[in-house]
Amino acid sequence: MAGFTLDPRLAADTLEIATLKCGLLRLMNDRRWPWLILVPQIAGATELHLLDAGVSAEIHARSDRCAAALAKITSCDKINTAALGNVVRQLHIHIVARFAGDANWPGPVWGFDERQAWPREAAERLVEAVRNELVRMGDIDE
Amino acid sequence: MAGFTLDPRLAADTLEIATLKCGLLRLMNDRRWPWLILVPQIAGATELHLLDAGVSAEIHARSDRCAAALAKITSCDKINTAALGNVVRQLHIHIVARFAGDANWPGPVWGFDERQAWPREAAERLVEAVRNELVRMGDIDE
Repeated sequence: MAGFTLDPRLAADTLEIATLKCGLLRLMNDRRWPWLILVPQIAGATELHLLDAGVSAEIHARSDRCAAALAKITSCDKINTAALGNVVRQLHIHIVARFAGDANWPGPVWGFDERQAWPREAAERLVEAVRNELVRMGDIDE
Repeated sequence: MAGFTLDPRLAADTLEIATLKCGLLRLMNDRRWPWLILVPQIAGATELHLLDAGVSAEIHARSDRCAAALAKITSCDKINTAALGNVVRQLHIHIVARFAGDANWPGPVWGFDERQAWPREAAERLVEAVRNELVRMGDIDE
């Protein structure tokens, strides 16, 4: 974690959910999709394939657990996961719940129109639901 | 592998590169981007987070190795990786080499305009380069 600070754009676009062993779990503040962002706390990291294999394995595994939690609480039709970083280079994994007929279904969520912030209470409910599911799964402590 | 057959749409849109331990490695037949597709040979698989952890770990690790190979041979600015599956449900991992100023930079490659097939010789050169790099890395036998 030495030297790691959350990219200011990621910080501005997301809300805190939890700190996991391998990184920060955030909620994209966009009510069009339930959308998690996992940010490994590794200063300077930009590409998964450049990390030590043990480190990337932990990130992938944790990302899959977050995807399972998101799928469970949203009953979505499909999970979309991606590591892109064309705009914000700091390594971050997108985990998005997709629904047939959602804002850009079946197209991608990235770069589509404008972000629409969650109403505060709805965001809080979703953050709480994700956190509770990860507690239930044993991925974070209460 | 029992019961696995490559989805017809994936088969039509891609060219064969190699069979890896965990799946088929294909080249998206779209000259706008050097774009690999890794298709785990698991009948009925649609979501990474629903696989046994050991199986998904192997797929993630292999995908990262393919990303490293693609980055090496293309000297791209960024690797984009994703598991989407909104259109073709059969589990497949996208590994795309992106360049500042490419066809839809910094936006996503999915759903952007029409696919443009590679000229045959250029496709063969790229397939050969990926295969050679994976041989060099020890990921496939010669």
